[in-house]
This record gives sequence, C-alpha cells and structure tokens, in this order.
Amino acid sequence: MKRKGILIVVSGFSGAGKGTLMKQLVHSYENYALSVSMTTRNPRPGEEEGKEYFFVTREEFEEKIRQDGLVEYACYCDNYYGTPREYVEKQLEKGKDVILEIEIQGALKIKEKFPTALLMFVMPPSVSELRKRLEGRGTESPEAIAKRLKRAAEEAEGIEEYDFIVINDKLEECAASMHGLIQAAHNAPVRNEELIENMRKELEAIC
Amino acid sequence: MKRKGILIVVSGFSGAGKGTLMKQLVHSYENYALSVSMTTRNPRPGEEEGKEYFFVTREEFEEKIRQDGLVEYACYCDNYYGTPREYVEKQLEKGKDVILEIEIQGALKIKEKFPTALLMFVMPPSVSELRKRLEGRGTESPEAIAKRLKRAAEEAEGIEEYDFIVINDKLEECAASMHGLIQAAHNAPVRNEELIENMRKELEAIC
Repeated sequence: MKRKGILIVVSGFSGAGKGTLMKQLVHSYENYALSVSMTTRNPRPGEEEGKEYFFVTREEFEEKIRQDGLVEYACYCDNYYGTPREYVEKQLEKGKDVILEIEIQGALKIKEKFPTALLMFVMPPSVSELRKRLEGRGTESPEAIAKRLKRAAEEAEGIEEYDFIVINDKLEECAASMHGLIQAAHNAPVRNEELIENMRKELEAIC
Repeated sequence: MKRKGILIVVSGFSGAGKGTLMKQLVHSYENYALSVSMTTRNPRPGEEEGKEYFFVTREEFEEKIRQDGLVEYACYCDNYYGTPREYVEKQLEKGKDVILEIEIQGALKIKEKFPTALLMFVMPPSVSELRKRLEGRGTESPEAIAKRLKRAAEEAEGIEEYDFIVINDKLEECAASMHGLIQAAHNAPVRNEELIENMRKELEAIC
C-alpha cells in the first residue's frame, strides 16, 4: 500500500532558525516538498518569484480566495499571505511529505481542516541564544529585536497545541531529529486509517 | 536538564510478537527497563520468578492492592495480574524508559493515571501472517487459535486510542522503528512541560 504524504506545519520563534532547518531537511532527506507561499507584499531585493514567495497582486490573491484555492491565508500589515492548495494536494497525492512554514494561528486553522496534519514547533536551545541570533543578524534595531522577543513570548503560549517540539541547536542533528519525528508521525493511527480498517475487516471475515 | 523517563505501554494481538520485539528493543538499545508483572497464577514449566512474573499468593496480591502498590491490575480467569509501582517509579526517576506489556483495558487505565504515558500497538504485517504465527506455535488447538483471532478482532477496536502502531514484520527493523517512535515521543510538548515553562519565564523576564 502506498504511503500517503503528511502535511507538516512548522512554526517557531523568529530567530529559531526555521528556514535554514527546513532547507537542511529537504536537502538531506528525500520525500519532502517545501510549499511556497503566495503574497501580495513586494519582493525584497534578492527574493525570487516562486522561491521565497509567489508574488501576486491584491486582485489575484482575492480571486484565489474566492476560488477556494488556498489551504489557509492571513493578512499581516496590510498584505495577504497564503498557501496555494494545488501544489500541496498534488504533492501529498504523490506521497510526498509537504512542509509549510506558518505562524501559530495559521497552524491551528490547518489542523482544523486537516486533522492528520503534523504540527512542529522549532525552539532555540535557550532564550539567550535566541537573542544572540536575532542580534547577530545585524539587520535589526534593538526595538525590532525587542518586538520579536515579545512576539516569541506570545507564540510560546500555544506550544501545547503542537505535536512535537524541536530544539534547534546543531543544524544537521536537528534536521535528523526532525526527520525522525516525521517518520514517527507516519505511525500514528490517525494516519493509518485504511490499514487499520483493512485489518479489522480481514479479522472479522475469519472470525 | 535530565531527561525524564517515559512510561511505555505495549499492547497488540496475541501472536503479533510483542514479547520477542520488546526483548530485541531492550537488547539493542540502552535506557530501557522492562517491567515485570506480578501474578497469582501458578508458574508454568520453565518460568522463573522475577523473569516472566513475580509469583505471589492471592493474599500477598490483595495486600499490594490495599497499599496502592500497583500501577494497574486486572483479574483474568480467576487470577490477578498487576504492575508493581515501586520498580516503575524508580526506573522513571532514573530517566529510564519503562516498558509494560498490557492489554487494552489496562493500557487505557494507565493513560488516565499517567497522561504522559506512551501507548504503542503492535500489529502483525497481515492477518494471514498472524494466523500463520499462531498456528506455527504448534501448541494450540484450532479452537484456541480461533479464540485468539476473535480476541484480536476485539482488541483492534481500540487501536485509535494508541499513540503509535508498530508493524512487526522484520524483528530488528521493527525494534529500530519502535526505538525511533519512543525517541520521537520524548519531543511531545506534554513530556517537556518544564522546558517549555522555563523558556516562557525567561521570555517574559526580558520582555
């Protein structure tokens, strides 16, 4: 029986290293597909269409919403961000495990719509490390960093809603651990309903 | 921070190979402790005190119940079977992952008392394989085998209550997979409350 793909939602504090971690995961292991979000915000220098985001107009985005073409979407700072449905469903159908990076509100919406989705929360090894990483970027003002830390404190309120936490200490080890968690998730009964149902039927047939 | 031990409950169809699998797990990987049950039934030829079971009298068992000295217990065919609390708690305290083999009713009782317990259900690769294994034992009548299959059908009703299913196909691979599942379970938020709480406090302190 072909193993179905899992929809994997990755959230975590800004500065926890989600992006790098996910790239490492996709690079080191097969069978993953990274979902690319759609947004109405302008591309930043260096960002490529279809790589960081699909960049669309507000009209195009709203048309997508009307067609139910998004798995989830949200509006931040006057810009839309969303996950195109077609790519996700096609990859899942192929048996790929599809990774989305979304913040907690979106993650919970996904869990409601897709009860078999796997929710993972990436944490830095410590708060001081988180601060160090944010400051190390060198691109943000102390105020912006303080804002990110405050946002982290808010996000931390929802960790219990996630299936697994992932401590991002050493990149490769963390990617390996994440891969292990995803493999484990494939063994949850909720993701094996067909297998269980078939076994039940066979058992009943011979009893 | 010292990692706390997990209480692991293993259930599964008779003939699915639970016993052999658990021995393989404990043999191949460190950090496991196998709980030995206490029973009032008579030892069978070859069974050793403290290995298969602790054999006690009815009076001793009931005294144990009165002292709240059992994690769970049940009565089958006029005999008591139970899990001594002291061993389990001592090993968990040491950071060991403690494995109990219990049927579904007991497993659910454990989950109620220990919300962080991990429930694993061992399945044979197929029903025909299950039948073959039961027949291959050569020790049981066709009626006894039919009874075990019927019992398997009943146990199968409860699989959704478990955290993970384990298909016992190739022994070593299956033990490796089981080990991976247990490692994964250590990353669930419910088993990391202290870590999460500490991170929250630190974040609040600097915000």
